[in-house]
Amino acid sequence: MLQFDKLSLNIPDTDKPRVVVIGGGFGGVNLVKGLKGKGFQVVMFDKQNYHGFWPLLYQVATAGLEPDAIAEPLRKLFDEYDDFHFRLVRVTGVDPTRKVVKTLIGEITYDHLVIATGSKSNYFGNDQIKNNSFPLKGIPDALNLRSQLLQSFEQASIIKDPEVRQSLLNFVIVGGGPTGVELAGSLAEMRKHVLPNDYPGLDFSKMNIYLVEGMDRVLPPMSPESAASTQGYLDKLGVITKVKTLVDSYDGEVVTLKSGEQIKTQTLIWAAGVTGATIDGMPAESVDRGRYIVDLFNRVKGTDEIYAIGDIAFMASEEWPKGHPGVAQPAIQQGEHLATNLTLLHRGGELRPFSYFDKGSLAIVGRARAVADLPKNLHLSGFIAWMAWLFVHIWYLVGFRSKLVVMSNWIYRLFTYDRGTRLIIRPYVRKDDKPGQDFALSNTGEVDSMQ
Amino acid sequence: MLQFDKLSLNIPDTDKPRVVVIGGGFGGVNLVKGLKGKGFQVVMFDKQNYHGFWPLLYQVATAGLEPDAIAEPLRKLFDEYDDFHFRLVRVTGVDPTRKVVKTLIGEITYDHLVIATGSKSNYFGNDQIKNNSFPLKGIPDALNLRSQLLQSFEQASIIKDPEVRQSLLNFVIVGGGPTGVELAGSLAEMRKHVLPNDYPGLDFSKMNIYLVEGMDRVLPPMSPESAASTQGYLDKLGVITKVKTLVDSYDGEVVTLKSGEQIKTQTLIWAAGVTGATIDGMPAESVDRGRYIVDLFNRVKGTDEIYAIGDIAFMASEEWPKGHPGVAQPAIQQGEHLATNLTLLHRGGELRPFSYFDKGSLAIVGRARAVADLPKNLHLSGFIAWMAWLFVHIWYLVGFRSKLVVMSNWIYRLFTYDRGTRLIIRPYVRKDDKPGQDFALSNTGEVDSMQ
Repeated sequence: MLQFDKLSLNIPDTDKPRVVVIGGGFGGVNLVKGLKGKGFQVVMFDKQNYHGFWPLLYQVATAGLEPDAIAEPLRKLFDEYDDFHFRLVRVTGVDPTRKVVKTLIGEITYDHLVIATGSKSNYFGNDQIKNNSFPLKGIPDALNLRSQLLQSFEQASIIKDPEVRQSLLNFVIVGGGPTGVELAGSLAEMRKHVLPNDYPGLDFSKMNIYLVEGMDRVLPPMSPESAASTQGYLDKLGVITKVKTLVDSYDGEVVTLKSGEQIKTQTLIWAAGVTGATIDGMPAESVDRGRYIVDLFNRVKGTDEIYAIGDIAFMASEEWPKGHPGVAQPAIQQGEHLATNLTLLHRGGELRPFSYFDKGSLAIVGRARAVADLPKNLHLSGFIAWMAWLFVHIWYLVGFRSKLVVMSNWIYRLFTYDRGTRLIIRPYVRKDDKPGQDFALSNTGEVDSMQ
Repeated sequence: MLQFDKLSLNIPDTDKPRVVVIGGGFGGVNLVKGLKGKGFQVVMFDKQNYHGFWPLLYQVATAGLEPDAIAEPLRKLFDEYDDFHFRLVRVTGVDPTRKVVKTLIGEITYDHLVIATGSKSNYFGNDQIKNNSFPLKGIPDALNLRSQLLQSFEQASIIKDPEVRQSLLNFVIVGGGPTGVELAGSLAEMRKHVLPNDYPGLDFSKMNIYLVEGMDRVLPPMSPESAASTQGYLDKLGVITKVKTLVDSYDGEVVTLKSGEQIKTQTLIWAAGVTGATIDGMPAESVDRGRYIVDLFNRVKGTDEIYAIGDIAFMASEEWPKGHPGVAQPAIQQGEHLATNLTLLHRGGELRPFSYFDKGSLAIVGRARAVADLPKNLHLSGFIAWMAWLFVHIWYLVGFRSKLVVMSNWIYRLFTYDRGTRLIIRPYVRKDDKPGQDFALSNTGEVDSMQ
């Protein structure tokens, strides 16, 4: 097989200034779009070959959408661009003094480096939880979680021990932010409309959905009004919400809360927090709690020609002393803004400070129910908010095709209540499973087929 | 984790006759549909939780469709049925004398057993080829192959050694039947319309698609006329076809043909033949070259109340002395027919012999090009055949939703030439790879995300 020494980044040297972008998320993609035709050579690194619309990731996890609906190949996004080079390769570090980015297959020099690596799940140092819980940060995570959910119902249908069956039917979601709320909502909708038909042998009054939040209410980042109506929806959907509650430990079988309460579950979903995906070789002074400290021009503190945008950037302003919320909008706006500034820089113009235009925030709670905080302290909820949610999310989906796919899925579902994609296409095997075990109860992708 | 002794099939005993069906393919699914409301308890076993429309599997492999377009959850198909029980569990054998089916989590008695296990790839005993080649028998196979194709282009973009690059750009498809032809055609279309935009740094005049067939022409099961026009299309598309050619060995790097010719390739796709997925415990006399010998009533030779339908059944008739072709139609018709016979049996009626209604066969060759053999020796080719192909395949897709998804995909593609789903969502790792190696060059589903 291929050895690294046989590989090289293989990027041509031109006289154009080279912008190296690490990460193809909202920040990176919008930066590259803004740099089109502005006389730069642009190099993008990512270890995935696609740009994902992560606000809809929970839909993939709950069998509502397939990955192609929320992801677009990065090469396809930029296939019309001159002197743009995508490399599917892992970045191992940077050397600011030599102005090089290091990857597993070689290094490359930069004139401008843009760090847009986003965030990763934060387990606050608890490796036991990290190893036993399900994160939801990318498509493989979502497919693993989908398989785990469906496999739990399959196993619950053939289990003798009622206690184990209950632990298969208990789902604990840690983190009451948008992801946690949206997951809890969809799961509750599935329990109501889909699962009883699929598993007539199972008693779904025994299926419990727990939503555990450390703060004193769900959706801490949103307004009290939206939080209140969201809590109302969740209660109506039968989600068991536990606020002011922290998780102490999870061994893969039992969650122990700080209060001492214990819940037996085979499925703990970790949506409790994120931290920046930092890179080796950056000066210590540039980092503050996992994010790079940037000025109003997204320049990373204590470095030269290194910029950070999106979740990984910590930009303190008068309006946002704690930095911007870790959502798509700041990343998109910073990407566009930095593209303008880099262009100005090379035309001898003056850099413009970034200011965040808050378009408000949205969260969906089950079918045709959502909440929205709009500027000027305006709050929407219910069907209108859901329509707004739908519109905004489809609007921001990359690619005409994705918009089509998602649209048709939503329309189909609005009328049928059904979720089309309950396929175990990526069977989840726990680290401590013997292959044969999972093999018995689900498709393992072996050659021999039994259809 | 769950131990088998904690699990049981958990199927209620009723006074209704119990039909146990092994396999949820075309045969099994149509049998169950035919038994609806006829007074049976029906138990279905499969190790996948979905019914797949395998004629379109090559589309998933070539990034044309996502799995949900060609697969339907088995539980969803039958969620309206009374006393129907699906179990996602592996069958380990049968005991005809005790009339029981054995699974990894226990056994169950049957009044009627229907074996509809279909076929699996046949490597003619060559384990080296089995371990190094890519089969295309199920959705995980298709996703693995898709990842391998895309990863090959990614790696070809960053490889120094021109010889290794060439081996990454050589794709060898063994087997000139419909699957091989359809794969070769789509790959050639991608080379023409999609890949050069995605990989501007690669010289696709160097990408070679080999189609290797042992017989003296492609599409042996189809008419000489259709084979001829297919060969014409393949030539126009630049597929290198080698007929009367057998593969001797493949070590993962080099294919050696019986002629002694060698081709360096990282990707060998095995579509060269299938054999029946037989079950332990069946009498030796019942098996003929991997298939169960059945009479005109699908009763397996030398057994009592055991039936076989579809690919796994060998029914010799005057018209079909070598049995029926291993395609969807015989399986569908035998499933429907056996349902009628089992119902007649319990109503004291007389069993009716099966006779196969040949509706003709179809194969697609690239975009808007297909060939069709219709009854009465009628042959279609070109766009008309393609429309027929499209219509038939969408017609036979299970589920209104799948029809919608496939339709919109086809329309989108007919106009854009694009294939939407070039996502590496199931990175393929060879058995001999060190994880770190693949890790560097593609997303491995690790928690830490870099978007």
